[in-house]
Amino acid sequence: MLIDGRKISSEIKVELKEEIEKLKNEKGRIPGLATIIIGKDKASQIYVGSKVKTCSEIGIQSFLYELAEDIEEKEVLKLIEELNIRSEVDAILVQLPLPKQISEKKIMNTIIPSKDVDCFSNENIGRMFLNPNTDIRPCTPAGILELLSRYSVKLEGKKVVILGRSNIVGKPIAIMLISSGATVTVCNSKTVDLEKIIKKADILISAIGKSKFIKKEMIKENAIIIDVGINRVDGKITGDVDFDDVIDKVSMITPVPGGVGPMTIAMLLKNTVNMYRRN
Amino acid sequence: MLIDGRKISSEIKVELKEEIEKLKNEKGRIPGLATIIIGKDKASQIYVGSKVKTCSEIGIQSFLYELAEDIEEKEVLKLIEELNIRSEVDAILVQLPLPKQISEKKIMNTIIPSKDVDCFSNENIGRMFLNPNTDIRPCTPAGILELLSRYSVKLEGKKVVILGRSNIVGKPIAIMLISSGATVTVCNSKTVDLEKIIKKADILISAIGKSKFIKKEMIKENAIIIDVGINRVDGKITGDVDFDDVIDKVSMITPVPGGVGPMTIAMLLKNTVNMYRRN
Repeated sequence: MLIDGRKISSEIKVELKEEIEKLKNEKGRIPGLATIIIGKDKASQIYVGSKVKTCSEIGIQSFLYELAEDIEEKEVLKLIEELNIRSEVDAILVQLPLPKQISEKKIMNTIIPSKDVDCFSNENIGRMFLNPNTDIRPCTPAGILELLSRYSVKLEGKKVVILGRSNIVGKPIAIMLISSGATVTVCNSKTVDLEKIIKKADILISAIGKSKFIKKEMIKENAIIIDVGINRVDGKITGDVDFDDVIDKVSMITPVPGGVGPMTIAMLLKNTVNMYRRN
Repeated sequence: MLIDGRKISSEIKVELKEEIEKLKNEKGRIPGLATIIIGKDKASQIYVGSKVKTCSEIGIQSFLYELAEDIEEKEVLKLIEELNIRSEVDAILVQLPLPKQISEKKIMNTIIPSKDVDCFSNENIGRMFLNPNTDIRPCTPAGILELLSRYSVKLEGKKVVILGRSNIVGKPIAIMLISSGATVTVCNSKTVDLEKIIKKADILISAIGKSKFIKKEMIKENAIIIDVGINRVDGKITGDVDFDDVIDKVSMITPVPGGVGPMTIAMLLKNTVNMYRRN
C-alpha cells in the first residue's frame, strides 16, 4: 500500500485552514510566518515560493525577506530580533543553506524559541527530547510520525531501523520513536552487518541520500518503508529505496517524490498554527 | 576486566582539583555549587552530604539550602532566581525527588542554563543533542562515556544495546553514542525478541532497575557490560546484571556498587568546574 504524503498533507492543510478560520475571530488576526532567504539559490527560491503560495491558500500571512548573498551576519541577526518582537509574526523561518559568513547555529539560537518554526534551537530540540507530545517538533520527523499515525501503524514493540543520524532527521526521529515505545536501532556508514540489521526491521526509515540503495533482498517481508532520501540522478528525483524492486515485498511504502517531502511543509504550517494559538 | 568507577572517579577528582588550583588565581575565587534539598528524605540527605564533602575535598565551595517538605513552589523559584544572579554560585543543583506541590519541569527550567549542573533544562539537553562535544552533559550518561573512553573502548561501528529509555539515562546516552558513531539499539519493556537483541550487543548498557536480570546465557561472548541499575534487595545493593553469573563471559564490566555510581558525582563536579571556567 502506498503511503500517500500528498493526500495526507492536503488533509492537514484543510484541517489547518479550518482551525485558522475558527481562531481568527478570537485573535483578531490571521497567523503570520516570516521567511528569510539569503542569496539567489534556485532550489531555495522555488521551495520558498511554494511555501508562500501554500501559506496564502490556508490563510497564513507571509512576510518574505529576500537578502543579498553577501549580507553581514549582524544585519540578519538584527532583522531576526525585530521579527522576534513583532506581534503579527508568529513564526520565523530562515531558509537553509546559508552563505559562509553566517553561522547557522547563531541564527537558530537568535530566533526566539516561541517563533522557531523549524525547531532547530537548543530550547525547542530539548523540549521535544524531554516531552515527545510537545506541539512544536522538527518538521520532517514529525511528518513521518504523522504519516505512520494516519495509516494506523502501531509503534509499540515494533522494530524500527533508522539509516542516518543527522540533527534534522535521524536523531530526532530516533528520540520520537523511542518515546513512542518502538525498539529503535540507528545505523550509520560504519555499521557492521548493516544488511542483517535492515532485514530485521518492521519499519525501515532511510535518510542517507544514496539513490536506490535499498533492494528487495535486503528488507523483511511486509516491512513498512519510509524513504526520506531525495537524490537527483540524471535530472530525476529518486529515493534511497529502489521502489520498483521492493514494491511487491512491502506492506506500505512512501514514494519519492510524494511521500515524506510534502509532509515537511505540512508540519511547518502546523507548527506555525500552533505558535499562533500559543501567541 | 573490572571497569573501576571508583578509581576513575578519584582520578577525575584529582584532575579537577588541579584545574581549580590553576584557575582560582586568575578568577580570584573558587567554584561554587549551590544545592537545594527539600524535605527529610534519608537517601537524599546522605547523597547530598556526600556531595558536599567531595566538593570541599577538591576545592569547590558548597552553598546548602535545606528547605521544609511543605515549602511553596514560588518560594523555591524565588531562591533559584536569587542563585541565578549570585556571582559566587557557578552551578545549581536541586536534589530529586521533589514533593508533590513542586513541578520538576518548572524548577529545571527556572535554573539559568549556564548554572543547570544536572543538564536537565530544555536548553542544555538541546545543546547536548545538537553538539555531542559540548562541555555540559547529563551526569550519568557522561560518566558512562568517560568510563568507556578511559578504558580505551572504541565506539565507532560497535553494536550498543541500551535497556531503558528514561530522560536522564536511556535517551541521552543513546544520543551521545549515536553521535559517537556506534550502532545503537534502544529497548524497552515492550521489545520483541529482547534476548536475541541483547545477545548481539558488543556493549550492553542496562538501566531498567531489575535486580540480576541479565544472565550469562543472554549476553555475547566478550561483551562489555555497563550496569546502571541500583536495586535494593534484602538491604543489599545489586545491579541489573547478575555479576557473578556473567563475569567469566564478559571482556569488561562495571560492578554495582563502584561502577557507574561514583562517575555520576564525578561528572557533576566536572560540570561545575566547566561552568566556573565559562563564568
